[in-house]
Amino acid sequence: MTHHHLRPDALHTVWDNALPPALTVTSGDTVTLDTLDASGGGVARRVASGELGAPDDLRALILADARAPLSGPRGHPLTGPLFVQGAQPGDALRIEVLDVRTATWGWTGCRPDGIGLLDAALAAEGLRPHTHLWDLRAGTHADFRPGIRVPLAPFPGVIGVAPAAPGPHPTAPPRHVGGNMDVRQLVAGSTLWLPVEVPGALLSAGDLHAAQGDGEVSGTGIETDGQLTLRVHVEPQAGITTPEFTTPTGGGQSRQWHATTGHHPDLMTAARIALRAVLRRLESRGLSLEDAYVLASACVDLKISQIVDAPTYTVSAFLPLDIFREG
Amino acid sequence: MTHHHLRPDALHTVWDNALPPALTVTSGDTVTLDTLDASGGGVARRVASGELGAPDDLRALILADARAPLSGPRGHPLTGPLFVQGAQPGDALRIEVLDVRTATWGWTGCRPDGIGLLDAALAAEGLRPHTHLWDLRAGTHADFRPGIRVPLAPFPGVIGVAPAAPGPHPTAPPRHVGGNMDVRQLVAGSTLWLPVEVPGALLSAGDLHAAQGDGEVSGTGIETDGQLTLRVHVEPQAGITTPEFTTPTGGGQSRQWHATTGHHPDLMTAARIALRAVLRRLESRGLSLEDAYVLASACVDLKISQIVDAPTYTVSAFLPLDIFREG
Repeated sequence: MTHHHLRPDALHTVWDNALPPALTVTSGDTVTLDTLDASGGGVARRVASGELGAPDDLRALILADARAPLSGPRGHPLTGPLFVQGAQPGDALRIEVLDVRTATWGWTGCRPDGIGLLDAALAAEGLRPHTHLWDLRAGTHADFRPGIRVPLAPFPGVIGVAPAAPGPHPTAPPRHVGGNMDVRQLVAGSTLWLPVEVPGALLSAGDLHAAQGDGEVSGTGIETDGQLTLRVHVEPQAGITTPEFTTPTGGGQSRQWHATTGHHPDLMTAARIALRAVLRRLESRGLSLEDAYVLASACVDLKISQIVDAPTYTVSAFLPLDIFREG
Repeated sequence: MTHHHLRPDALHTVWDNALPPALTVTSGDTVTLDTLDASGGGVARRVASGELGAPDDLRALILADARAPLSGPRGHPLTGPLFVQGAQPGDALRIEVLDVRTATWGWTGCRPDGIGLLDAALAAEGLRPHTHLWDLRAGTHADFRPGIRVPLAPFPGVIGVAPAAPGPHPTAPPRHVGGNMDVRQLVAGSTLWLPVEVPGALLSAGDLHAAQGDGEVSGTGIETDGQLTLRVHVEPQAGITTPEFTTPTGGGQSRQWHATTGHHPDLMTAARIALRAVLRRLESRGLSLEDAYVLASACVDLKISQIVDAPTYTVSAFLPLDIFREG
């Protein structure tokens, strides 16, 4: 078991199985990825230039933290790809999210002509472009303004493997091999399964969010640079067809869940994909198809994980694991 | 303040503002509604006739509890309507859910040709019609089979007021005045606001569910007869355009939420309706439209409350209230 550290000079902004690996790892290895925010330093650059105003203390943080910005990335800056030795099409990567560390600041934006759920409707009401800057130093929460604070629960907005289909593929929409899923429950302590489609899997991640609601309704969470530490395993022939994950307890969550994800331009279809996958989890515990279906109706929760990453949206189906009892 | 009790001989199976009130109440009064299950006694009748098998102890419960079944209701059997004195179009009803009591048993079903999210796909895999019977006497949970138990959190699947548009209207789809919303968070301790469209509001409820996942994916929760106790208030000119509610803490929920609902044939549009309403709650606390939008992106959760009540589906937007701090 080796620990690796991948700095963000290994960046790519499209998914493409022809990209050369930035690192080769063995099943069971851990790796820390330095990651850039979704704007690739663009927001920091706007603060540095004075185009975007910031309170003095926050401005100092941002300038101290600023890196050389990327020159015009077309997609999310992703750190990777990792070639995982032995991973073959049909296998799954099982990825333990060990640690997620944000920078000292982050941002959330909205635009009248962006990707947000209500951009068009709110543009008609006079919505202006706006970037909110957050001080993340408290770690457990961030003050929005006096009297309003948001709890922090950082996670990678993008984590995925290379699709089999020849690239390049844009990073904005997630797909059945993961990517920009914006699933806010992928916090430290969670475990993610991704279907492998190419030899070595070619795992990449980035776009950390310090917090986000299910949906990411304005199009951005609390976007931030950071460090993501993962342990990666190969599970041969795992029968995974869409990303699935388990959540940890803690952080206000008293229940543990096994969740499945569906990614599709139609939310109804995305929900069907996620539900079919969660029924398979119940069937694998010995339930008939009928029993799985009625039990899911009584206890599985459908969440809209993101509704902004056009043209593909994400619905997740959450099965509570505390319904299963010993004996 | 008077307490009323409405027995289920006051039943209707369509929404229609021409229905005569079963009871007249004053703002602040409480009322207990006896309610029938969604099948109007049909499942109990199938058990009584032997068409549907049941373990002996559960069969005894069902027979002991059986009422004279309704003859062929076309929709959910609803108890009401209540005429609330003083309620006028433009007002809101504020409804405190004080108590929800289920019968001693319930049922959850699936069919290859029903309303469930995966019926067509699973029919192709051989899904058979199935009715699962639950023993609800433990109160806090129900055993599905050895090793699997589901926590109970009963709520009314249907609660709403009469629409202004002349009826009759079917009970299956929910609408902007409520109805078959299947919002599982409307448990005892929650408070629901409904927009009033006709004098007296004409409130009705029924279709209790002992438990349900967000989505109600097979088309039924744990369906049961029961008793629902509400306190009803008139809020003049409350500015409510779609059902909204607050949730209690407890029952595994450590956070309290203010949620808004959107009901529409298109899930994306339903989400937009819910989100616009929750932004209004933030704006009413003094936030600009831009601040409301980015704050919602960081902390508001979109849930699919039900995805089976064709042709209208429900997305709810949950704002956590613990982000607001004194001082």
